[in-house]
Amino acid sequence: MSEAIIQTEVVVVGAGPAGLFQLFQLGLQGIACHLVEALPHAGGQCAELYPHKPIYDIPGIPACTGRELAAQLQEQLRPFPIEWHWGQTVQSLASLDDGRVELRTQQGLCLVARAVVLALGVGAFTPRPLKLEGVDALLNRQVFMQSHDRSAVLAQRKVVVYGGDEEAVARLLELANLPLPQRPAQLMLLHRRDVFKGSDVQLAQLQQLREANAVQVCIGQLQSLNRNEGGHLSDLGVLGADGTVFSLPLDVLLVYQGISPRLGTLEQWGLAMQQKALVVDPARFSTSLPGVYAIGDMASYPGKRKLIVCAFHEATLAAFAIAESLQQAPVLLQYTTTSTRLLQRLGRLPTHD
Amino acid sequence: MSEAIIQTEVVVVGAGPAGLFQLFQLGLQGIACHLVEALPHAGGQCAELYPHKPIYDIPGIPACTGRELAAQLQEQLRPFPIEWHWGQTVQSLASLDDGRVELRTQQGLCLVARAVVLALGVGAFTPRPLKLEGVDALLNRQVFMQSHDRSAVLAQRKVVVYGGDEEAVARLLELANLPLPQRPAQLMLLHRRDVFKGSDVQLAQLQQLREANAVQVCIGQLQSLNRNEGGHLSDLGVLGADGTVFSLPLDVLLVYQGISPRLGTLEQWGLAMQQKALVVDPARFSTSLPGVYAIGDMASYPGKRKLIVCAFHEATLAAFAIAESLQQAPVLLQYTTTSTRLLQRLGRLPTHD
Repeated sequence: MSEAIIQTEVVVVGAGPAGLFQLFQLGLQGIACHLVEALPHAGGQCAELYPHKPIYDIPGIPACTGRELAAQLQEQLRPFPIEWHWGQTVQSLASLDDGRVELRTQQGLCLVARAVVLALGVGAFTPRPLKLEGVDALLNRQVFMQSHDRSAVLAQRKVVVYGGDEEAVARLLELANLPLPQRPAQLMLLHRRDVFKGSDVQLAQLQQLREANAVQVCIGQLQSLNRNEGGHLSDLGVLGADGTVFSLPLDVLLVYQGISPRLGTLEQWGLAMQQKALVVDPARFSTSLPGVYAIGDMASYPGKRKLIVCAFHEATLAAFAIAESLQQAPVLLQYTTTSTRLLQRLGRLPTHD
Repeated sequence: MSEAIIQTEVVVVGAGPAGLFQLFQLGLQGIACHLVEALPHAGGQCAELYPHKPIYDIPGIPACTGRELAAQLQEQLRPFPIEWHWGQTVQSLASLDDGRVELRTQQGLCLVARAVVLALGVGAFTPRPLKLEGVDALLNRQVFMQSHDRSAVLAQRKVVVYGGDEEAVARLLELANLPLPQRPAQLMLLHRRDVFKGSDVQLAQLQQLREANAVQVCIGQLQSLNRNEGGHLSDLGVLGADGTVFSLPLDVLLVYQGISPRLGTLEQWGLAMQQKALVVDPARFSTSLPGVYAIGDMASYPGKRKLIVCAFHEATLAAFAIAESLQQAPVLLQYTTTSTRLLQRLGRLPTHD
């Protein structure tokens, strides 16, 4: 566990649309930010729950998927120097005597900031764990959990996707459709029964791949991770439908047993809550804890609707409130269309300082 | 003046980004809407004041001009059957005994609705008038005011643009760059002195056109609209720099003497105001007058910032409040990603009723 303490102006927790736009609005205010996110990538709920389904109510964007929206929001905040901390889940939050806020993660990170914005959505997305002996030692080497497998090297390997939901099928199809040099040498789908979820198009593609022998489907329940003498994962022990255990050789296992949001220790942070949401002042989006703000689905105020478009507004007013609190003076409204200062911060005009 | 009364569920006043997204959110709620706008087209402030300058803080859209944003918002609400009333300025607003709201325009329109949403921005954009004898009879025939000239037939005509601001120069360049069949036969820029406003690129283009004799620049002050025996405008009387009056033959005059927003009779409608803005409840965006809502730059509540992103949120909560008021029951949140009813309203799924 690292003992280093990172000091900064603002920490934003959560890289869903709310957190991403919060970083943009704080960037416009000229405020330095760190971001903490449980997943190894941006997008939040709309990218995890419905990555490929269109959203139709983002103003000015007639249709986009959750992933596309996240990509656009990241593109938009590219001018700003943000420090990203991926794969970090908040463990504790506390007010310090000097008015700053200390945030610690389960993974050992400690950040001290003048303000923290919680853009938690429905909680930290956590893959359903694989409860098998020896899994920890193989994690992120030969075993990768759902949504944490973007760094896995799969080219020319024997790859098993373990799962039967739409996300398992989608990941399998994605791998099968890679150009030859990046494609796994062998691609197998392991599931407890021969029934898979997905759109009609996805299921038809899966069927085609099975008929072409480009994908093997294996029916059974994963029972053990078997290692060779060098300690490497060499094969899986699988309990078949007929009650016998057989061996499935592989190089890499992708565990797609579902992913779901968890609130973790939130209720122990001492924040005023109402119906499992954080009570905020809708003029500032401040919580009951000094220096801590909340926006998005986890924030509660009169009239609140859990919509992305509302989170964008909340992020905007929170950024103004934080800027006023940091500089102890009113912040005047400026437009990105005409303000020299904002255009410089956005990298659209040269700076002379 | 028409005496017909139009009855509908909701009237939205103003077709800037706030009003356009209000129509979209009401459409999602399945509510029938009429729109009233002073200009003959959508866009509001951002399209009138900075039509060609980029906006950088619309969430998910790293850069777009005001006109592009308006076009995208119009595209987004295309599934909904909206009745548009262009070139209509609100004259009066009154609560009726049955709880409905009556809205009358200067142009003689009368609408009675269960709710009215004011998305007024900074007021109704009004071109600076041309105070010359006989102008009324020629209006929208041979004389067109700034931002009201999209219907003018200019192909193969002798056209005079009267003005020297960026918008006058931009309109002249637009006409000069039309393909030959649509282009005016003769194009003249009339201004009181030989100094024009515009970007470096625009002014360089103007200079090139002058040198190529594709555009004539005439310096002087417009004094009279002279008609021939048939009553048609035949030439302009112009007072030159040397004090003599000369004649300028033409077919069509485009008056680009500036356009600016006016509040008109707003202060007489009986709405509670604070610092020239309408006081609203930020949970519902209702004003002090039953059935009347306000969003966007003209709405005032604690923490209010006059930004487009905030207007989008305000439109969303106003739509929920209006839907609950119309159906006298709570409206549950649904997502466009997953709700069959919303996808049907958006025309993305077939309806079976």
